[in-house]
Amino acid sequence: MNNIKSFDPYDISIPERQGILTAAIGPRPICFASTVDKEGKVNLSPYSFFNVFSNNPPILIFSPSRRGRDNTTKHTYENIKEVPEVCINIVNYPMVEQMSLASTEYEKGVNEFVKAGFTEIPSETIQPPRVKESPVSFECTVDQVIELGTEGGAGNLVLARIQRIHLDTRFLNEYGKLDNTKLDLVGRMGANWYTRANMDSLFEIPKPLQTKGIGVDQLPGHVLHSDILTANNLGRLGNVEQLPSKDQIEKARSFTTVANAYSRFDGKELVNEIHRLAAIELEAKNAEKALTILCTYNE
Amino acid sequence: MNNIKSFDPYDISIPERQGILTAAIGPRPICFASTVDKEGKVNLSPYSFFNVFSNNPPILIFSPSRRGRDNTTKHTYENIKEVPEVCINIVNYPMVEQMSLASTEYEKGVNEFVKAGFTEIPSETIQPPRVKESPVSFECTVDQVIELGTEGGAGNLVLARIQRIHLDTRFLNEYGKLDNTKLDLVGRMGANWYTRANMDSLFEIPKPLQTKGIGVDQLPGHVLHSDILTANNLGRLGNVEQLPSKDQIEKARSFTTVANAYSRFDGKELVNEIHRLAAIELEAKNAEKALTILCTYNE
Repeated sequence: MNNIKSFDPYDISIPERQGILTAAIGPRPICFASTVDKEGKVNLSPYSFFNVFSNNPPILIFSPSRRGRDNTTKHTYENIKEVPEVCINIVNYPMVEQMSLASTEYEKGVNEFVKAGFTEIPSETIQPPRVKESPVSFECTVDQVIELGTEGGAGNLVLARIQRIHLDTRFLNEYGKLDNTKLDLVGRMGANWYTRANMDSLFEIPKPLQTKGIGVDQLPGHVLHSDILTANNLGRLGNVEQLPSKDQIEKARSFTTVANAYSRFDGKELVNEIHRLAAIELEAKNAEKALTILCTYNE
Repeated sequence: MNNIKSFDPYDISIPERQGILTAAIGPRPICFASTVDKEGKVNLSPYSFFNVFSNNPPILIFSPSRRGRDNTTKHTYENIKEVPEVCINIVNYPMVEQMSLASTEYEKGVNEFVKAGFTEIPSETIQPPRVKESPVSFECTVDQVIELGTEGGAGNLVLARIQRIHLDTRFLNEYGKLDNTKLDLVGRMGANWYTRANMDSLFEIPKPLQTKGIGVDQLPGHVLHSDILTANNLGRLGNVEQLPSKDQIEKARSFTTVANAYSRFDGKELVNEIHRLAAIELEAKNAEKALTILCTYNE
């Protein structure tokens, strides 16, 4: 039985709420925002209240929030109010420590490109420069700034429209597409935690867009109550397009492994052995075959 | 020399742009949104154009965008226009395959809780139910829906205000705080890729908030042009609060490893050896000591 703690968000302190929101809502992509003030002085600062929100028109949104500590505003926000442009640079693992250093609250007018050791490259359509070390940069004009509140911790939505895209070709695959197995992106979590999206943590799930899976509700009862199959196994089985035919099930009964199971076991032991055989097929990405093997068993 | 491909976002096709935006901007947190229509029929669907954007007031935003394929709207968007409430459930690794199955475009009125095998629990402040299997759920009322365009691929911002928080206490640490090392959250990347934020991929960077690091620009020239130290090493060194004193440097010269380096090597070999010793200290999280060792070398 899950033990659930339920409460009103207004019944906890603002730092406590910040802790819950930033630990629960993650991993968050990082917007490394380059802006200029009206005198052209450059600022570079990372924000993780950020994402893409529209492809057409292409709009990215991030929030340089009001500080919870003292309700002051950030230089990025002030710069955007003066010059409504931002270069949004993407952060990958090899640059993450320098990015963290750029989040230091240096005095206004201090250029974090210099302090954090990044290289400025002039943008083509906007004043703020881009970060040479970033694998991808988006030059954006700011459509709108939406203030979500006036107290400390209030978000300020910056709606940034992409005007120019820069891709480092080292991160493209053989088809010329940006490749997540090469990018090594980092995401922000709660407290001091970050996560690295590289080979070891990346995994694929085929999109269930065109075909409609049968659904977990169509799986046999013994599968739903399995001691062997995980919830993820059930999800994958529910994504199979149709239940196997009688002929397919009959054929599966004659697989050596399946026939052996029926000759050697019965009762709960037989169910578990059939589920183990299905789990092996799921591991090998043969969801249809796994489902067929499972359907050989009649309750 | 980096090879950069620069182009106008309007010069590529909408699917191509989608590919770039979703591969570059990641990992994206996942909003598993439960909504109801005016007849109370439940919908459950995942969205990765999502993040927290404000702590005070507590506002989460996600976008059930217009489909790029045929410019139709999603059931989630239609439901929110009828009943402006949403339960935002957080997704972790053990439930990711079922979540993916819930993204199937079943007919309107089909309950994805049932199809994907999740358990509905009544919410306390809103009509849409929450997902029992989620480690965290946020009951929200919808302040506003902002349509970013009228064509296929246009985002629809749903500004959701948190009214009630549910935490599964299995994911709290000994201090009662949500713990990213227990949550095992998943993030969405491009194509069919996801990433898992678990022990293997999580890493910590101490926040440079109160103290101001000296900056990469204050590091000695031989450090900036090191063949041994990485950009991340430089970032960590730039985060040290002050350059070491003459006394500290003098003391470092008498460390056995450092003294050995000076007696055995000179020229480029000496520089590399000193940098190797510093890298070992950085690995052990002794950034101050690493910087002191580096400062023993005068160019």
